[in-house]
Amino acid sequence: MKPLTMPPRLLMGPGPINCYPRVLTAMSQQLVGQYDPAMTSCMNEVMALYRQVFETNNHHTLLVDGTSRAGIEAVLVSALEPGDKVLVPIFGRFGHLLCEIAERAGAEVHSIEVPWGEVFEPEQIEKAIREVQPKMLAVVQGDTSTTMLQPLEHLGEICRRYDVLFYSDATASIGGNPFKTDEWQLDAVSVGLQKCLGGPSGSAPITLSERYVELVRKRHHVEAGIRESVHQSGSGSRIRSNYFDIPMLLDYWGEERLNHHTEAASMLFCARECAINLIEEGIDNSIARHKQAGDAMLAGVQALNLEPFGNLAHKMHNVVGVEIPDGVDGEQIRQQLLLDFNIEIGTSFGPLKGRIWRIGTMGYNARKDAVLHTLQSLETVLRRAGHKLPGGGGVDAALDSFSGSSL
Amino acid sequence: MKPLTMPPRLLMGPGPINCYPRVLTAMSQQLVGQYDPAMTSCMNEVMALYRQVFETNNHHTLLVDGTSRAGIEAVLVSALEPGDKVLVPIFGRFGHLLCEIAERAGAEVHSIEVPWGEVFEPEQIEKAIREVQPKMLAVVQGDTSTTMLQPLEHLGEICRRYDVLFYSDATASIGGNPFKTDEWQLDAVSVGLQKCLGGPSGSAPITLSERYVELVRKRHHVEAGIRESVHQSGSGSRIRSNYFDIPMLLDYWGEERLNHHTEAASMLFCARECAINLIEEGIDNSIARHKQAGDAMLAGVQALNLEPFGNLAHKMHNVVGVEIPDGVDGEQIRQQLLLDFNIEIGTSFGPLKGRIWRIGTMGYNARKDAVLHTLQSLETVLRRAGHKLPGGGGVDAALDSFSGSSL
Repeated sequence: MKPLTMPPRLLMGPGPINCYPRVLTAMSQQLVGQYDPAMTSCMNEVMALYRQVFETNNHHTLLVDGTSRAGIEAVLVSALEPGDKVLVPIFGRFGHLLCEIAERAGAEVHSIEVPWGEVFEPEQIEKAIREVQPKMLAVVQGDTSTTMLQPLEHLGEICRRYDVLFYSDATASIGGNPFKTDEWQLDAVSVGLQKCLGGPSGSAPITLSERYVELVRKRHHVEAGIRESVHQSGSGSRIRSNYFDIPMLLDYWGEERLNHHTEAASMLFCARECAINLIEEGIDNSIARHKQAGDAMLAGVQALNLEPFGNLAHKMHNVVGVEIPDGVDGEQIRQQLLLDFNIEIGTSFGPLKGRIWRIGTMGYNARKDAVLHTLQSLETVLRRAGHKLPGGGGVDAALDSFSGSSL
Repeated sequence: MKPLTMPPRLLMGPGPINCYPRVLTAMSQQLVGQYDPAMTSCMNEVMALYRQVFETNNHHTLLVDGTSRAGIEAVLVSALEPGDKVLVPIFGRFGHLLCEIAERAGAEVHSIEVPWGEVFEPEQIEKAIREVQPKMLAVVQGDTSTTMLQPLEHLGEICRRYDVLFYSDATASIGGNPFKTDEWQLDAVSVGLQKCLGGPSGSAPITLSERYVELVRKRHHVEAGIRESVHQSGSGSRIRSNYFDIPMLLDYWGEERLNHHTEAASMLFCARECAINLIEEGIDNSIARHKQAGDAMLAGVQALNLEPFGNLAHKMHNVVGVEIPDGVDGEQIRQQLLLDFNIEIGTSFGPLKGRIWRIGTMGYNARKDAVLHTLQSLETVLRRAGHKLPGGGGVDAALDSFSGSSL
């Protein structure tokens, strides 16, 4: 059998993107045992690192062993009992995902929607909270399906006022856009590694407030066969998933170290490296780098006379939607970029399918050379497909954008 | 921040164990996009490889992105609707786990039990099937908590006769003990990488029969926001989990490539390498190597006058339970082995806690040198703790056992 040799793609879509080399190398670390002091201290270190990433003092900051939607499901299914009301403001595909996961947990899901390409005003959300009186507000921060970033900074105060749990999925945005768990009064946050953190998919860091933890602890049950006193029960209804049972995950990550799953050690090492990489760069520096690369990509796209999608005042730093010009076959262009230039840009879902490309600048690829190669190659491919556009305009505008920056 | 440097442990517990170096290296492969032809062909290759690992022609052979219990939960929650009856023969901790996961899926769980250290006769299981008339029989093959291997070869025929789905979790046994999905007429099997396959925890290969797939497809729903026709519905009740929704996982792994999670690419590469490693060695050769190492470890333990646990006629090849002698502090011995010799052996759960150690010989560590070092070190540590035992007996018996073997 042949060894795995992947083509050297430059991944400029909405994620996953190329990993930082140091993150890939970290996974080659040989294992130690699950309860080895070296392992448990590594787990504690990872908790401390992600407190920094999330900008929180939450003790309960840990990894869920799965992709980013595993983190979402763990947060929702552990907190929402059948019949509990949850409010989901939907501004793209991932709002629908939150609804769907909450529905499957048996929750009564209420949603409000804005057109794809827009975000919500805090007043719209407050009005819905007043009407619905949900147990939880669940909202995506950055939805790559539309490239929009929902402002969260005013929502925590509203949630506290109405005694609502405040949860956000920040998978696509964290590390490339500001995110402040404590300052914004969030009760639960879940993310993934495969966007601005520059790792592969497969580990979902989460952070949980005391308020959230107190609530889910009421649904605590210990697995049979683990210790003598089986089926110790909390008063709440049993959480519908074993794998995503946060009280049990807390027992495993906590001092008690009660066996649950076997921690996915290589992904733990990987998550550790992603966090260290971010912290060594400095979170603010990383955000500034994402903004710089995103601004340059936007300038380049506009200089090619291509139309960016959505409300640019609320665009995520790390991805831009680009309207596919009339008469251009979007998939054909993507294909050519991939085959001739080894560059991947993203297609779209749902209502935007066939209407926009999505071009990312995130993690390792939030770099000048990556932006410049992408713009040049996009120009070449569009030109050879017979589309008229200003020659060299894109790359020049991006270079100007970069040189105007102080970074 | 310091780079991660784990101590060079020799992991001789019930798993996780040291990974094959080539498996660790495979995770350093740089990523490609989620729908890159290089990625989808790698996914197809992994499906084909695991068909060989599982000894099946099942088309529907794929990975669940999580630890081995993620595979268990996916199989159970996708098939079991609330109120469905499932029969679980329990002979150790992982039988309890199957019950608990099935209960949370809303199933009506019936179990039968034998004392820890024993396994079931097919007649016992058939009798229970007749009485319970379950939709599914769910049974662990190798339960590391007791070191016992449940014979499965007669159960498929029984299940077919009573029209019962037959599922087994073979996480701890596959690759080190015979497992024949098609010959034994299994409908669903889930495993993990961290035992005899010699990888880290974090990916759960599963294989599914047509019968199983036909059944769960009736519960098929498409996620909102993915394509125009939202909420296409099957007739069955909606699966309680999005993450573990097998019909959706099949759409993602199948020709349709409908977006679900973002595949955990590094764990995919890792799972691929585990399978190739096994297939290149030859499954029968790998099983023989595990038997040889397990036999040698057993001979060594017995020659040290230590008592193996359970019914040896049904011991898994890859792990042995060892009664902790009277007057010996089991945890103290484990601690000393770890600190002085960098060797980890396992402790126990539930009714066996403090009663036995569990010593594994699996995957990369099903090796002569690993067995010999472990026996010598165990002897030294026991001797220095004041326990009397035949000097050199263990390592000599193991060497004899190895030299009597044809491998």
